[in-house]
Formats: sequence, C-alpha cells, structure tokens
Amino acid sequence: MDGMTGLAGAAGAEQRRRIRSGAFAGPTAGLAPGNVQANLAILPRAYANDFLRFATANPRPCPVLAVSEPGDPRLPTLGADLDIRSDVPRYRVWRDGVLVEEPTDVSHVWQDDLVTFAIGCSFSFEEALVEDGIEIRHISCNSNVPMYRTNIPCVPAGVFHGPMVVSMRPMKPADAIRAVQITSRFPSVHGAPVHVGLPEMIGIRDLGKPDYGDPVPVAADELPVFWACGVTPQSVIAEAKPPFCITHAPGCMLITDLRNSRLAAL
Amino acid sequence: MDGMTGLAGAAGAEQRRRIRSGAFAGPTAGLAPGNVQANLAILPRAYANDFLRFATANPRPCPVLAVSEPGDPRLPTLGADLDIRSDVPRYRVWRDGVLVEEPTDVSHVWQDDLVTFAIGCSFSFEEALVEDGIEIRHISCNSNVPMYRTNIPCVPAGVFHGPMVVSMRPMKPADAIRAVQITSRFPSVHGAPVHVGLPEMIGIRDLGKPDYGDPVPVAADELPVFWACGVTPQSVIAEAKPPFCITHAPGCMLITDLRNSRLAAL
Repeated sequence: MDGMTGLAGAAGAEQRRRIRSGAFAGPTAGLAPGNVQANLAILPRAYANDFLRFATANPRPCPVLAVSEPGDPRLPTLGADLDIRSDVPRYRVWRDGVLVEEPTDVSHVWQDDLVTFAIGCSFSFEEALVEDGIEIRHISCNSNVPMYRTNIPCVPAGVFHGPMVVSMRPMKPADAIRAVQITSRFPSVHGAPVHVGLPEMIGIRDLGKPDYGDPVPVAADELPVFWACGVTPQSVIAEAKPPFCITHAPGCMLITDLRNSRLAAL
Repeated sequence: MDGMTGLAGAAGAEQRRRIRSGAFAGPTAGLAPGNVQANLAILPRAYANDFLRFATANPRPCPVLAVSEPGDPRLPTLGADLDIRSDVPRYRVWRDGVLVEEPTDVSHVWQDDLVTFAIGCSFSFEEALVEDGIEIRHISCNSNVPMYRTNIPCVPAGVFHGPMVVSMRPMKPADAIRAVQITSRFPSVHGAPVHVGLPEMIGIRDLGKPDYGDPVPVAADELPVFWACGVTPQSVIAEAKPPFCITHAPGCMLITDLRNSRLAAL
C-alpha cells in the first residue's frame, strides 16, 4: 500500500496483466474485489476539453477519477504499469457516433491527440452497501442494474448536453436511509442518491421498462432509490457524435489499483 | 466559548435567569437561537436506574444529554448556574401516572432521591435543516410537529417498555436525502430518520391523524420522513406510572448553554 496515493497494487495489476495478455475478455464484476473499477471515455483533444468541462459541471453522474495527458496511454495515478490501449477487456470504437468495432485492444486505432477519462463506477459504492448487509437487487437477480433516462438536465458544456441517466436499487426504507449515509461517503463514485420514492417526479413512467439494463422486482414494502449513473456521459457522448471515440464495452471496466475504501470521504 | 465543553454561556443563561425569575413561563421555541434545548424527565432513584438502562438501549428516541447526581438539582455540563427546580418555564408533576400540577417551579415538591435526565430534542436538528434551506412544514404552518405511535418496539428495561413514537416532516425526495445527510451528523438529538415514505410499514394508518401534535399537509411530490421522537420516553414513563415524576410541559423546554453546532459528530 502506497500511503500517499492509495494504490494497493497486486490484485488490480494482476488482472490487468491477464487482460493485457488476451487471456480474459469478459465482464469485470467480481474481479480484484475491493479495487476501484472505472468507466472509460477516450476522446480527441478538441472534444476532451469540452468533456472535461461537462464532467466538472456534472460531478454526480460524471465523477472523474483520472485524466491522461493528450496522446499518453498511461494513467499512473490508477496503476503504475497501466496502459489504457490494452488493459480493458473489451472496447467500443465509435466513428461519427457509429459503433464500428469491439476489439480487445485499441493500439491499432490509437492517435496522439487522444485524452483518456476514467470515471467512477457504482461497483465501488455497491461493495460498501453489500459489506453493510444491504441487498442489491440486481446482484441477487444476477442481472444488470436497471437504468433510466430522467427529466433532470445535465449542465451543458460545449457540444455535450443531455438528461441525467440514473440507476435504481429497490430497498426497504430503513436500508434506503442507511444507503444515503454510506454512499454519501463516496462522492467520487456518484455519492448519495439523487432521488428516492417518486419516479414519476424525475420523468420515469414505468420502473419495469428501464432504458438500459434489466428490470428488477420492487416489493410493496420497498422504495426505488436512484443514483446518478456513469451511463450519463456515454449517453451524452453518443448524442454529440464526435468523429472518433473509444469507450469500454458494457460491464468490461478498467480495473485500477485504487482501493474502494480509499475513496471514502469520511 | 469554553473549548472543552462547548458551553457558550450568555444567551442560554440569560433566558434561564428570566425563566427562573418568573418573568417568562411559555414555550421556548425560538429562544436563545443556536442553543441546545432539552426534554426533561425527573425520576426517583429506583426508577432512574431502570430509565437510564432504557435510554442506553434506545438512543434514537431517548438520547441522553446529561444525568444529574441523585438529589442534586444541578446539571453543570449544560450550564454552570443551571438549577433544574426553577429553570424550565413550566413543569408537569405526576403521581402514580396522574398529572397533578403544572407549576413554574418545582422546589416545593423536590426530593433528595430525584435524578434529572436532559434528553436531546429535534429543535437542534431542525435548526440545521432550516439553515440548509429545507422547509420544515410544521414551522411554516406555525403548528406542533405531528407525532405518531409506531409498531416499532423499544428495547425494554425494567418497568419501561413501549413502542417508539416518531415525528414526521414532509419533504421533496431530494430534500429528504439531504435531511438524512444533515441529521446523521447529530446522533445526540435523534440522528438520522428511522423511516421514509411508507408509513403503513411502521403501523401508521392515517398521517392526517397524529397521536400527538397537529396534522400537516403532505403534497403529492413529497415523502413523509420520520424521526425517532423525544415523546417516546414521556410515553413510556406515563405507561410505567412511577409513584412520582416531573417532566417539562409540552414545548416548555430546558434551554442549555450548549451550542447545537457542537453536537455535530462530523
């Protein structure tokens, strides 16, 4: 453990080496338990400037864990040996807003003006909830978290604009209160919920029909609890249709050397 | 300001002197703004031992700010000159569970085995909510907070047992989330809510018919948010019918020299 940076090395670096070698190309949930995993957005420098302003103005859906130097494939604050061109199991390559390729390595499309953004992911706060004994429904159901486009506008910046996307976890009211306490400690991975209990107020008509992910059952003694979601920046980038862009494939996150516990504000 | 104890003197002591002199005998809401006000329970030593165990086992509804030595009318940690026989605007004197008197001074019924409990009050966390810009409905309505007996049992201790009483404040969902964050910082004045959104789950059938206090309107875009309430110990004492007991008259609290901000855990 490096006391200054919160890097804890071994498990994250090991998984990245395995992924880099091509030995693993699947979803990363459950790998390197306790290590921070991140959403990925890689943009040409001109778009990156707007995007960083967008992220700064919308830290709940778009909490930036690290930004690279233009053209530099390294993110040393997330892992000393990290090479963003090879260390994610599967990528999506977009041209003019169209998905053109889903490779396991992006060295062949790398450009010297690309800026990498690693964005906080709900895996980190879900781990803290599970450790506290709170059931996470989509984990119990072995499905993807349900996500919804809302009527909450993000603060626009340059070409980037659009509504906030939220993820939903049903909880008994006492667990929902506890979940506010726990996730408030993690502002760099979406922080506290943005809404609870009245989905129609934020423009969600039918909890059974998420815009992304899978529906989960909500019991009569539960409230739907909504967090700002890392799909928001993906959705906003898709809308902006930059000439070139790389993201991670859904569920195939960047595994870092940061420990989730080191993200806790308190 | 005494850095070690958090005592801030002037305003609280001034109000107590005014009350002690007989110049004021009304509700204390709004007096000595920023100072902690407390619920009062005074019991004979034999009952006091059980009651302290009850309070220790039920800190959410019964957070003890101070306990006196038996027979000693002082509470020096709440105010150097504080004399509990005279410093509350109006008292209630109970014999065998029957209200026998509502005097402005209890020197004439004082006994050398009486133990005083000062118990945290929601005024402290309401001040923090208001400072954050959150509307408190019963304050807007200029009425008493609505309170309800629930189906949540307190942990029994000796002769003291009974259900938790809760207070309710309607809030928009985002304000409810913020209220969890703010009140979590104040564990010694009831702390975080115990419930939100589904009153029937905690045995409340009709929000319009509180068991204590006054009903307040709840809008369609609001959730009822429930906090453990200092009426719980009063209700439990009333049920136990001790041979002798003194409480404060409703709304006529003990004004201390503690500052609300000094109760914040974080």
